[in-house]
Amino acid sequence: MAPSKLLRQVADTWQSRLGLAPAGEPAPPWATSRWFNHEGAPLQPAALRGRVVVLHAFQMLCPACVHHGLPQAQRIQAAFADDDVAVVGLHTVFEHHAAMTPVSLEAFLHENRIRLAVGVDAVAADATDPIPVTMRRYGFQGTPSLVLIDRKGRVRRHAFGAEEDLTVGAAIAVLLAEVG
Amino acid sequence: MAPSKLLRQVADTWQSRLGLAPAGEPAPPWATSRWFNHEGAPLQPAALRGRVVVLHAFQMLCPACVHHGLPQAQRIQAAFADDDVAVVGLHTVFEHHAAMTPVSLEAFLHENRIRLAVGVDAVAADATDPIPVTMRRYGFQGTPSLVLIDRKGRVRRHAFGAEEDLTVGAAIAVLLAEVG
Amino acid sequence: MAPSKLLRQVADTWQSRLGLAPAGEPAPPWATSRWFNHEGAPLQPAALRGRVVVLHAFQMLCPACVHHGLPQAQRIQAAFADDDVAVVGLHTVFEHHAAMTPVSLEAFLHENRIRLAVGVDAVAADATDPIPVTMRRYGFQGTPSLVLIDRKGRVRRHAFGAEEDLTVGAAIAVLLAEVG
Amino acid sequence: MAPSKLLRQVADTWQSRLGLAPAGEPAPPWATSRWFNHEGAPLQPAALRGRVVVLHAFQMLCPACVHHGLPQAQRIQAAFADDDVAVVGLHTVFEHHAAMTPVSLEAFLHENRIRLAVGVDAVAADATDPIPVTMRRYGFQGTPSLVLIDRKGRVRRHAFGAEEDLTVGAAIAVLLAEVG
Repeated sequence: MAPSKLLRQVADTWQSRLGLAPAGEPAPPWATSRWFNHEGAPLQPAALRGRVVVLHAFQMLCPACVHHGLPQAQRIQAAFADDDVAVVGLHTVFEHHAAMTPVSLEAFLHENRIRLAVGVDAVAADATDPIPVTMRRYGFQGTPSLVLIDRKGRVRRHAFGAEEDLTVGAAIAVLLAEVG
Repeated sequence: MAPSKLLRQVADTWQSRLGLAPAGEPAPPWATSRWFNHEGAPLQPAALRGRVVVLHAFQMLCPACVHHGLPQAQRIQAAFADDDVAVVGLHTVFEHHAAMTPVSLEAFLHENRIRLAVGVDAVAADATDPIPVTMRRYGFQGTPSLVLIDRKGRVRRHAFGAEEDLTVGAAIAVLLAEVG
Repeated sequence: MAPSKLLRQVADTWQSRLGLAPAGEPAPPWATSRWFNHEGAPLQPAALRGRVVVLHAFQMLCPACVHHGLPQAQRIQAAFADDDVAVVGLHTVFEHHAAMTPVSLEAFLHENRIRLAVGVDAVAADATDPIPVTMRRYGFQGTPSLVLIDRKGRVRRHAFGAEEDLTVGAAIAVLLAEVG
Repeated sequence: MAPSKLLRQVADTWQSRLGLAPAGEPAPPWATSRWFNHEGAPLQPAALRGRVVVLHAFQMLCPACVHHGLPQAQRIQAAFADDDVAVVGLHTVFEHHAAMTPVSLEAFLHENRIRLAVGVDAVAADATDPIPVTMRRYGFQGTPSLVLIDRKGRVRRHAFGAEEDLTVGAAIAVLLAEVG
């Protein structure tokens, strides 16, 4: 058996045990209206290929995001090298829209010393739709949601709610270890 | 020596050891533009006489308020009977004013299930002054600030920053034990 | 109404609300075989009169003692002045006797940097009784148990299991505020 | 470039970034006098080949072991499947020997509901040597010490002190992903 095939089988085992889906469709593009802690062209999964991407979708007034998800995203950024793992925040406001404007988000990030690049999910074209564009594309059930995207730009894990550091760290490492 | 004098001496000792000031001026009135979790006339220290009042001044985007001060205020409310201790929140916005509007505060209280009565500190008449009216009256250095008001409506303790539950509980009990 | 009577009534109210019993019998003496972090005559409640006494009964291998009770006892010792509040540990071994000998306790106190005076509860005269002498005298249900003794040497509170800092601090302060 | 070579290069990068040493000598055998939570022949790294082995060396009275290391070892056991990752405890007593006997250890494991297989490191043949046999073989600096052994039975990581869940989880996953 060729090494590449053997590797794929082992990886498949780990994909399922750590909640990693088999490689599938490319990650949909992110539709954002603004970025904080990031200058230049809006970040996109396609442009981050070659790195593992951790997308943390949150709302600034969601308690589980404030107390668990965002601190975990910051720990991930500190634990891995930037050129191996890109940690990106996405502010997906689907409720209390007037309460969580970009102005409020900016102060929130500043006061909590959050240095992650954070994109603001774009408001739906249909003004009656409270769900922002990227949230709908990815099918998030709520916040916090964690998305792991592999080096080839494919969504491999999609978690809603609090995740343990041990298994998130393991899943990231599995994706890092994958080779062409 | 008369019992009342003896009591006063013991109380004086405890006032200083628990950071309690000797009885002084009446607590200044609160200038508020709006209340949450409270209906009817705006709350005022004068109207709460007979009870010990714990005033927790905070900003919804102040991390030490979110992670320490507000949970402590909620624990105080749960630990003491309402007719013994009145716990009142005051949203004293002195920075990021556009980020911490009453609309944002309302969503914050809702999402964090904070049932405390919370007043919004009134904007200064002088539009160039970022410090709201009650904050200036009380001379708060920042948030979180904790004020303990005795049964006679006098400010007895004024703390800026995180306080330990043990000493806050003890200071409240000393004020509760004071008699006319 | 005389002040002393008024005070007693208020105190009675607080006794019940904070779990404080009305003043009753003197605290039974402590039967100990050895002391750590204390030299001289064995400590006794009678000899500590004038101060409020916090007795923390524990077993070194009881998880709730290690994770909650002993850290709380240390915080109480740090929060109050020694001549106001005496915090005393009592090692009441009623199970796994061979595992929690004074030799093991000494290493436990050393490794955890516990500076409290700790007495070893005396083994029952009846060799078939696993309950040590002081534990039986006080009627502890298990560990951790917290006993509050007032300035006059009377047991006023008896709690089994984890207690909140706020209410323990308040109960101690009520006892401190009591005058002759 | 052949896939197997490419994989090795990526793995080498990750070995260093996660503190993983390049594959070296086989893990020395464990010298134990007794096992808890394990029946049958004493566990040995050689007999666990094919699985990743997490060895947690601790002392029952070491605070960093009780508060951080052992809870982490239990989380690792819960997070990974038993036939992928074997988590093994080793009680390496090098101080307070009379305080941390197997009798005390047994009560400690029982009271803390620790279900890990735990071996008791064998006392040195030279009675004047306080360091037990396995501890000396592995060169532990103290407790807690964490050793990661790969599927081929080679020591790949050796950490003294507290380690973060994220990086431990990642290191375990890297070893799991390694193929023949």
